[in-house]
Amino acid sequence: MVSLGARDELFSFHEFSLIHRIIDQLGAAAAQDIVVPPGDDAAVWATSSPGNLIVASVDAMTAGVHWLEGSESTMTTSDVGWRAVAASVSDIAAMGATPKMLLISLMLSEFSSSVFVDELVQGISDACLFHDVKVAGGDIVKGSANGISITVIGETERSVDNRILRRDSAKVGDIVVVTGRLGGSAAGLSLIRSAVEIEQSMEILTRRHRRPEARVVVGRQALLAGARCAIDVSDGFLQDLGHIASASQVDIEVICDDVPLEIAAVGLLGRSMALDLGLGGGEDYELVLIFNEGLFKDIERASDTELTIVGRVVEQIADQAAVRAFDSQGEIYNPAIRGWDHGN
Amino acid sequence: MVSLGARDELFSFHEFSLIHRIIDQLGAAAAQDIVVPPGDDAAVWATSSPGNLIVASVDAMTAGVHWLEGSESTMTTSDVGWRAVAASVSDIAAMGATPKMLLISLMLSEFSSSVFVDELVQGISDACLFHDVKVAGGDIVKGSANGISITVIGETERSVDNRILRRDSAKVGDIVVVTGRLGGSAAGLSLIRSAVEIEQSMEILTRRHRRPEARVVVGRQALLAGARCAIDVSDGFLQDLGHIASASQVDIEVICDDVPLEIAAVGLLGRSMALDLGLGGGEDYELVLIFNEGLFKDIERASDTELTIVGRVVEQIADQAAVRAFDSQGEIYNPAIRGWDHGN
Repeated sequence: MVSLGARDELFSFHEFSLIHRIIDQLGAAAAQDIVVPPGDDAAVWATSSPGNLIVASVDAMTAGVHWLEGSESTMTTSDVGWRAVAASVSDIAAMGATPKMLLISLMLSEFSSSVFVDELVQGISDACLFHDVKVAGGDIVKGSANGISITVIGETERSVDNRILRRDSAKVGDIVVVTGRLGGSAAGLSLIRSAVEIEQSMEILTRRHRRPEARVVVGRQALLAGARCAIDVSDGFLQDLGHIASASQVDIEVICDDVPLEIAAVGLLGRSMALDLGLGGGEDYELVLIFNEGLFKDIERASDTELTIVGRVVEQIADQAAVRAFDSQGEIYNPAIRGWDHGN
Repeated sequence: MVSLGARDELFSFHEFSLIHRIIDQLGAAAAQDIVVPPGDDAAVWATSSPGNLIVASVDAMTAGVHWLEGSESTMTTSDVGWRAVAASVSDIAAMGATPKMLLISLMLSEFSSSVFVDELVQGISDACLFHDVKVAGGDIVKGSANGISITVIGETERSVDNRILRRDSAKVGDIVVVTGRLGGSAAGLSLIRSAVEIEQSMEILTRRHRRPEARVVVGRQALLAGARCAIDVSDGFLQDLGHIASASQVDIEVICDDVPLEIAAVGLLGRSMALDLGLGGGEDYELVLIFNEGLFKDIERASDTELTIVGRVVEQIADQAAVRAFDSQGEIYNPAIRGWDHGN
């Protein structure tokens, strides 16, 4: 749970002491071995190879919107730190690039305790070590609520054809492939909200909600093997496919029976509900990879997780690009759950 | 003024439409000509030369803390956008590096109107064009108040000795040099708050508060000419010198009479008050450059603004590094205004 202790001395610290304290607490997750480590006006570092392209993205979460505090909370403060890192890193994974450095902007309400900051930093640190990224810098400001915004900067090799996994490069005839299993995060959230005691066999679901893992390795391997199109499952699988369809000006067809669902979610909620969560729940941070079928075996061999073919790219048939899901009768299936719009 | 219109349809837009609208509005300030422009999971670009070092910093501002809304407002919404960009870019200027790309994280309260967003983006766009940086990506989330966090990513040449302007490289005997003139921003704020009609000769002060300009050119030239130590004047001149003193483990002595003050501020408030604002007001976004006196003529020749020698680096005499300001009698001078702590 997010523990909001009595207001303590947090804001009697100068920002500068607080920053030093956070850098200390980050330990090995702070980028101490770069040209200019955290603590100066800016951080400075070299790419792994001269000439590498820079890949950068920013992702924000705010209390009351992306996580709840107090009795409604579905995760600990350190889970919030972990998720913020994983969600940001996932955007770099979806490009097939290697994430390297994070810049963290923290907004703290006057009711934040130093315990809150310590726990948040612990989750950030754990997720950094897990995903092999480091914190290069940050800023801390007072605000009317707690919020965290993480910029992740990674890199990838420069090539004549600028190879990268993009949203706008799905080609008619390509297969649609999903890493891992979907619906686990939303099922975990539903399980936590039900407030029943959680059996050990269901803990994978709460972990998927609280400690998602970005698919950096398989994204990278897919790029190296020849894939050029991907997105991560953050808003909801069908909605994320919609971004690809509209950027690539194609339609995408998905076979519902082929969508790999988190097994514990099917056990807990039944296949129909688990499917709806898999199609629309979002926040699984799996990757959707779209590529020529001939590449499948190579990419599967290099992958550190299971890959499942769930659909195909077809020609756009109407004015607007569309995603169609088909049920086992070959009928269009509309899941009961819509994807997540970050703005809301 | 920040005009908070009646709540309109802002959050009926999907985030994705809002992002496209913002990219359109940014126009030439959006990085459309890079490998992967805004709109994908991450932006991708090449450095100007292969092997350049990456230089990155993040800076956040929140409504009610860094700017006021409604009747207490001291700047327009587009000024807020400008300032957010300039403050971030100033951190890169203080490294002697070249700022290139911005990633913008916007937190919007449910009371934000689309007019607010349009004006903010206009200010961002104007400041990007002025400082020759582009917006490579962003995220928009709902929050309990308006806030903006800007990550700026720049670059500089790699060299064997990793030359860069750092806080920890002031050497005993170096001179302390200030670009431009200090106190203008705080005097401008004071003038705006006084609510008197502002004469044309005083408009430089309101402009320094609302539309600060980062000193990118002189920072770069100082680095190229051999300087290795700098900071930007954001928290307050003496406080910023304190960061250098403590990072470099030296003391710094400043001659108050030599500190270049914004002339209009002296005219408006008298020399004594203008001095206090110059020493402690902050947010002038001038640079403090610290280097061997022998470099002064070269750096002055290459500078696009006036440079003034205001002090010298001396040996640290106590346990804690210290900054001492001396008045015309040679006595220690303690200004009435303390520097700004971002956390507060």
